[in-house]
Amino acid sequence: MTTLSAAKDVLRGVATLVAVDTRAATPIYSQIYQSFRARILSAELRAGQLIPSSRELARYLRVSRFPVLNAYAQLIAEGYFEARVGTGTFVARSLPVTVRADTATRATDTPSPLRSISVRTAALPRYAVPYWVNHAGPFQLGQPALDEFPLKIWAALTSRCARRLDCTALRYGNPFGLDDLREVIAAYLRTSRGVRCAAEQVMIVSGSQQALDIATRVLLNPRDRVWIEEPGYWLVRHVLDGAGCRAVPVPVDAEGLDVEQGIDRCRQARAAFVAPSHQYPLGVTMSATRRLQLLDWAHSAGAWIIEDDYDSEYRYDRMPIGSLQGLDADARVIYIGTFSKVLFPALRIGYIVIPVDLVERFAVVRRSIDMCAPYENQRVVADFIRGGHFARHIRRMRGIYADRCRTLIDAIREQLPGCSIAGAEAGLHVALLLSHDAADREIAAAALQRGVLLAPLSPSYAGTTRRSGFVLGFGTSAAAEIAPAVRVVKQCLSAARALEGTRRATTRRGSFDRMKSRFLDG
Amino acid sequence: MTTLSAAKDVLRGVATLVAVDTRAATPIYSQIYQSFRARILSAELRAGQLIPSSRELARYLRVSRFPVLNAYAQLIAEGYFEARVGTGTFVARSLPVTVRADTATRATDTPSPLRSISVRTAALPRYAVPYWVNHAGPFQLGQPALDEFPLKIWAALTSRCARRLDCTALRYGNPFGLDDLREVIAAYLRTSRGVRCAAEQVMIVSGSQQALDIATRVLLNPRDRVWIEEPGYWLVRHVLDGAGCRAVPVPVDAEGLDVEQGIDRCRQARAAFVAPSHQYPLGVTMSATRRLQLLDWAHSAGAWIIEDDYDSEYRYDRMPIGSLQGLDADARVIYIGTFSKVLFPALRIGYIVIPVDLVERFAVVRRSIDMCAPYENQRVVADFIRGGHFARHIRRMRGIYADRCRTLIDAIREQLPGCSIAGAEAGLHVALLLSHDAADREIAAAALQRGVLLAPLSPSYAGTTRRSGFVLGFGTSAAAEIAPAVRVVKQCLSAARALEGTRRATTRRGSFDRMKSRFLDG
Repeated sequence: MTTLSAAKDVLRGVATLVAVDTRAATPIYSQIYQSFRARILSAELRAGQLIPSSRELARYLRVSRFPVLNAYAQLIAEGYFEARVGTGTFVARSLPVTVRADTATRATDTPSPLRSISVRTAALPRYAVPYWVNHAGPFQLGQPALDEFPLKIWAALTSRCARRLDCTALRYGNPFGLDDLREVIAAYLRTSRGVRCAAEQVMIVSGSQQALDIATRVLLNPRDRVWIEEPGYWLVRHVLDGAGCRAVPVPVDAEGLDVEQGIDRCRQARAAFVAPSHQYPLGVTMSATRRLQLLDWAHSAGAWIIEDDYDSEYRYDRMPIGSLQGLDADARVIYIGTFSKVLFPALRIGYIVIPVDLVERFAVVRRSIDMCAPYENQRVVADFIRGGHFARHIRRMRGIYADRCRTLIDAIREQLPGCSIAGAEAGLHVALLLSHDAADREIAAAALQRGVLLAPLSPSYAGTTRRSGFVLGFGTSAAAEIAPAVRVVKQCLSAARALEGTRRATTRRGSFDRMKSRFLDG
Repeated sequence: MTTLSAAKDVLRGVATLVAVDTRAATPIYSQIYQSFRARILSAELRAGQLIPSSRELARYLRVSRFPVLNAYAQLIAEGYFEARVGTGTFVARSLPVTVRADTATRATDTPSPLRSISVRTAALPRYAVPYWVNHAGPFQLGQPALDEFPLKIWAALTSRCARRLDCTALRYGNPFGLDDLREVIAAYLRTSRGVRCAAEQVMIVSGSQQALDIATRVLLNPRDRVWIEEPGYWLVRHVLDGAGCRAVPVPVDAEGLDVEQGIDRCRQARAAFVAPSHQYPLGVTMSATRRLQLLDWAHSAGAWIIEDDYDSEYRYDRMPIGSLQGLDADARVIYIGTFSKVLFPALRIGYIVIPVDLVERFAVVRRSIDMCAPYENQRVVADFIRGGHFARHIRRMRGIYADRCRTLIDAIREQLPGCSIAGAEAGLHVALLLSHDAADREIAAAALQRGVLLAPLSPSYAGTTRRSGFVLGFGTSAAAEIAPAVRVVKQCLSAARALEGTRRATTRRGSFDRMKSRFLDG
C-alpha cells in the first residue's frame, strides 16, 4: 500500500464520521458542521488531524460541494479547523485535548451535588410556592379584590398608550422612571399621605420589594444591625439576610414598634424597617408618641428609617393617618409605596421617596441593578391617575373593603367570642390572636383540609417568643364567603382544643401521634 | 383673679394658636387638626397641657362643634391628645418634648452634608446621565434602530392582550415569569443559539443588567475574585463592585478573552464574566480554542461562567455562532440574553438560563429582589414570538444592520486608511482603534462640539494599560449620515494630530493650555 492510498484511507475514516441525511429539515451544511464539531468535542477527531478536502468529502457524501465549503468556512471561522495553504485543512492544533461528553446529546441536569454558591444565598430558606399563588380563598393574603378592578378602563388606556407609542419612548429610560408618573405620584403623596416631596425625589421601582432591596443596598453595610418589627413581614428578613445585615427584632404592641425596647436592645442600630400606617401582620397603627420617639432616636443615632406604606390607602375608622416621613424634620425617612394593593400586583410598579441628598446615590445603584422601569406600564398608570380613575377606584374599593372587614369582624365576634382581633381599622387583613400555646400551624393545616386557607401568625416572628394566631386577609373575600369560613375556623379550633385535651390524657400511652395524623388527614 | 378665670385665660391662649379660614378649600376639621399637630410638634403646646373643650373652641372660632369634635377624635386616635374622663382633653403626656422644626413648612433638602450610607455604594462612581439619553447621532451606542420597529403590530398585540386581560392574570406571578414566554424563549434558544435548556431553566428578568446582578448575588461572595474582560462592559464592574467582589481584568485579543493570561493572573477566580459571541467593546468572537480552554478552566477551578449574549442575533458574515453554554458539559455556564437590542430597551425583558441544580436558589433570590416580572409585557412578547413577528423582525433588521455596517466600514477604509477596525462581523457596533497615545476622550469632546457623538474606547479598560479608539454604534444610523460623520471624525483626528505637534513644540512656552481650551471650545 502506498503512502498516498494509506492517507486516503485515513481520510475516508474521517469522512465516515460525518453523517448526512438529505431528507432532514436541517440544512446539509449545518449537518456537516455539527458532525465535525461533535466529533472534535468528543475527541474522536484530534487537534492537528488532517480533514478531507471539500471536494473529497462532497464526493464521498454524494452532495454538492457548496454545503461542504460553507461548513468548512464556518468551522474555520469559529476556530475548529485551520487551513494551511498548500497543505490542506486540519483540526485546529490549539484546541485543548480534553475528552468531552457529547454536548449535543448530553443533558445538563446531572451536575455534582455540591457546588459552591454564595454563603448568603445558600443560607436563605427553601423556595416554596407561596400559598396565595395556587389557593384562592376567603382569607387569602396580599391580594386585593382583583375582580373589582376596572379592566375595561385599563384596557382602553393601555390600547391608547400602545397606539400612541412612538419610537423615542422605546429607548432606555431614566433610572428614576417616567417624569410624568413621578409628578402625579408626588402630588398624590403630598395631598393624601402627608409626604413632603418633590417629583425629583420619587423613583419608580417594580414594587415595595425592590424598594426595600434598593434602600438596603444604598444605606447598609454587611454586619450592620437593623431594627425589624417583631412580628413582621417575612420578606424584609430575606432582604436583610441577602445583604448580610443583622436583624434586631423589636416587639410591636398596640402602639406599634416599641422604641424604648429597641433602644435597650440596640441603640446603635443603623436603620429601622417599619410599617407605621398599618403594621404587618398585627395591623396596628403607630401612635404619635412612638413616631416622635422613633424620629428622635434616628436623629440621635444617625440611623435611617425605612417606612413601608404598602396599603394605607384603605382606612375605615377615620381620616387616613399621615406618613411618618411627613413628621420627619431631619430627612431620615425613606418612604416606600406600591400600586400592588390599590391597582394590581402583576403590574409591578411601586415607588421610593428619597431624601434629596441621597437621590444621586439611589440612581447609581438602581442603574446597576436593572437600569430602569419599563415604559408602557408607567405610562398607563400615569394616565389612569390623571384621568381620575385612581381616586375613584380607591374611593369605591374603600367602601367594599370596609363592608368585608365589618362582616369578618362581626362573624369573628359571633363565632369566636374568646379570640381577640387586631388591626381591623385599615388595610386588607386583620390579625386573630389565640392563646399563647395554640399550635397555629397545625390548625392552619387542618383548615386547609377543609378548604379554608389560614395563614398562621407565629412564622411572622423572627425570635423564639411567638404569639399564636392567624392573619386573615379579607381583600378577596366575597361577603357571603366570610361567615362560613369563620365557622370552619371555629370547628378547627374546637378540634384542636379537643385534641390538646386528648394529647394531655394520652401522651403517656404514646397514642398521640396516631391521633394527630388522623386529625390532620381528616 | 380666680383660679377658674386664670385657667380660662390659659385655654384662650391655646385657642388663639388655632387658625381657621372658613373660605379655604381645606376642610375646617382638617385645619384644626393640622394647627394642633403643628403646635405640638413645634413644642408650643407641651405634653400634658390642657386643651379647651370642643364646645369652648367651637365658640371661640365661631364654627360648628362637629369639625372640632372630628379633629379631636383624630388627634386622640393618633395619640397627640389624650382624654381623661371627667377632667378634659390634654396633649398626650407620653409625647417626647423635643422642639422640632415646623414640619409642615420646613423643606427636607438641607440635611447635614455627611451622612453614612453603605461603603460600597459610596464608592460607586458619580451618576451621569448616559450620553445616549440626550444625544442621538450616527454613532449612538446601545440602541437599536427603533424607527424600524413594527409599532403597529406591537400596538395591536398590546391592545388584544389588554382586552383579554382577566383578573387571574393580575395576581402576583411566578418569580420565574410567565410559563408561555419561558417556553417560547427556550425553543428559540435551542434552535437559534444552540443553548441546551428546558423551559424550567428559563427565568424572565428585566434585562441583562438584572440578570448580571441576580447571578452575582446567587453565586458570589464579597471578596471573591472574578475574571472580567479587559476592555469590557462598564456596568459589569458596577455590579461586581456593588457585591464587594474583586474584578480581575483579563486581556481580550482577536480570539476573545485570553484564558491562559487569566489563569496566570488568578487561577482560583470564582467566576468569569464573558460575552463570547460579540464582545463589548472590541466586538471579537471567542474562538473555539478559547471557549474550550475557558470551560476546562471553569471545570477544574470549580468556577462559574456568566455568558452575556446581548446582541448575537445579528451576525453578518456567516451563520450565527452557537452559545458557549451549548458546549458546556458541566453545567457551569449561566446564559444571559435580552430583548433590548432585538425588540426595544424600554420593554425591560431579558432572561437567564440557569443550570438545573441552581434553579431553586435563583428563585429565592429573585423573589427577595423584586418578586417577579410584570404580566402584560411578558404576554405581548410571547404573542409577538408565537405570531412569527419576532423571526421576521430579526431577519429584516439583519439586512438593515448589515447595510449600515458595510457603509460604515467602507467610509472608515476610505477616510481613515490608517485606522484599524475590530468587530465588524456582528452586533450593532464596531471598534475603531487608534495609535496607543491618542487622547480619545479629548477627540470625542471635540467631535461632540461638531455634533458627532463618539464614545471613547479607553474608559472601557479597568486597568491602566489602555488602547485608544472609539466604539461606533451603527444601529441607529441612517446610511446617509454615516460618511459625513466619519469625515468629522477624520477632521477631529487631524486637528488632534496637529495639536499634538503644536503641543510638543509649545509646551516649553506654556501656551499649550490656552490652545487646548481654544480647541475644545471649537
